Amino acid sequence: MTITAGKFISLEGIEGAGKSTLARALQVALRSHGLPVVLTREPGGTVLAERLRAIVLERAGEHINAGAETLIMFAARAIHLDNLIRPALAAGSWVICDRFTDATRAYQGAGRGVRAELIDSLAAAVHADLWPHRTLVLDLPVEQGMRRVRQRQATGDRFEDEDVRFFERVRSCYLSLAATEATRIQMIDATLAPELVAQNAMAAIRDMLPAGHL
Amino acid sequence: MTITAGKFISLEGIEGAGKSTLARALQVALRSHGLPVVLTREPGGTVLAERLRAIVLERAGEHINAGAETLIMFAARAIHLDNLIRPALAAGSWVICDRFTDATRAYQGAGRGVRAELIDSLAAAVHADLWPHRTLVLDLPVEQGMRRVRQRQATGDRFEDEDVRFFERVRSCYLSLAATEATRIQMIDATLAPELVAQNAMAAIRDMLPAGHL
Repeated sequence: MTITAGKFISLEGIEGAGKSTLARALQVALRSHGLPVVLTREPGGTVLAERLRAIVLERAGEHINAGAETLIMFAARAIHLDNLIRPALAAGSWVICDRFTDATRAYQGAGRGVRAELIDSLAAAVHADLWPHRTLVLDLPVEQGMRRVRQRQATGDRFEDEDVRFFERVRSCYLSLAATEATRIQMIDATLAPELVAQNAMAAIRDMLPAGHL
Repeated sequence: MTITAGKFISLEGIEGAGKSTLARALQVALRSHGLPVVLTREPGGTVLAERLRAIVLERAGEHINAGAETLIMFAARAIHLDNLIRPALAAGSWVICDRFTDATRAYQGAGRGVRAELIDSLAAAVHADLWPHRTLVLDLPVEQGMRRVRQRQATGDRFEDEDVRFFERVRSCYLSLAATEATRIQMIDATLAPELVAQNAMAAIRDMLPAGHL
């Protein structure tokens, strides 16, 4: 059983949804309440997990099939949990993580067709004891997300190479997860200005703040 | 379904059993029959899979739990199969692989206590269509293997750090797998001189040679 004195929040959404910007804004806002905050991301977050991230994201000459990609995501997650997330939560920090297992469901599951049963059994094996206390899905139309990505960089990674239909499947999966797990997963309109997104995100986690911080 | 014009042989055994020496001897012997042979190893065998090998074998500051280790082994295996083993077999080569899924059963399963059901379900997900045509387990007492390893190198990897009881569990698992899958898995006495080990190994795969090569 994982001891969680701190709170664990994951941010999800398609490319260009504004997760990194929101993560920094939440960090500032939570710290203004005197709360310790660790920002991290998946795949990655620790030295070894970032090495797994590089293998799975870069465009290599070798083929990585969807099953192998899924195994690497969960291996990186196990390392991330053991070496960063669980210790930070046990120490009382809030952990804000850019992507977690919902991303594996959306990208490898809905996007690439990996069976949901395989993903569920891996999630159970790796972190049955610990899911994010709250997950914020930054939602926006796929075309808008892709436009933002093109504006900020010339070349993408293996995922940013995917076409519109792939990201439509990813977005639909997030919407359906939010419908199924309405308590944990909150949708945030990511078409709004970054300050409004941050305000709405804070409103969606306000009930998790310690008493006296509302 | 994997097309296998060539034959797939895996070599198994504890540290110091003589797998690498035998692999080279088998390569020479099979080539003397005019057969194309690819030598490879797990975890590893391709550029990306060798990067996964480095992550799992080196002594890093970060903790890698047995489940994560198992996922990395199967991810490396999937990459190895797609990018080297299946193409080589389809092209008619013999593939001699230093370790395969039986090693995951023995080391992560029996050695580290990962549930057999998880290993079996990952094996089914990654290579239900393809198991080695023959597996040779080089068997010798654990103390003798450890003595050989100490003679050839000053420092070991994460596995060579394990104690005698760990390798006793690994060895027992190999013996029990050989009893269960007697057709595929053949035991070879690895306490003998390398030339005798190679002769016995060739005898154990002679029935796989093309007609006229007996």
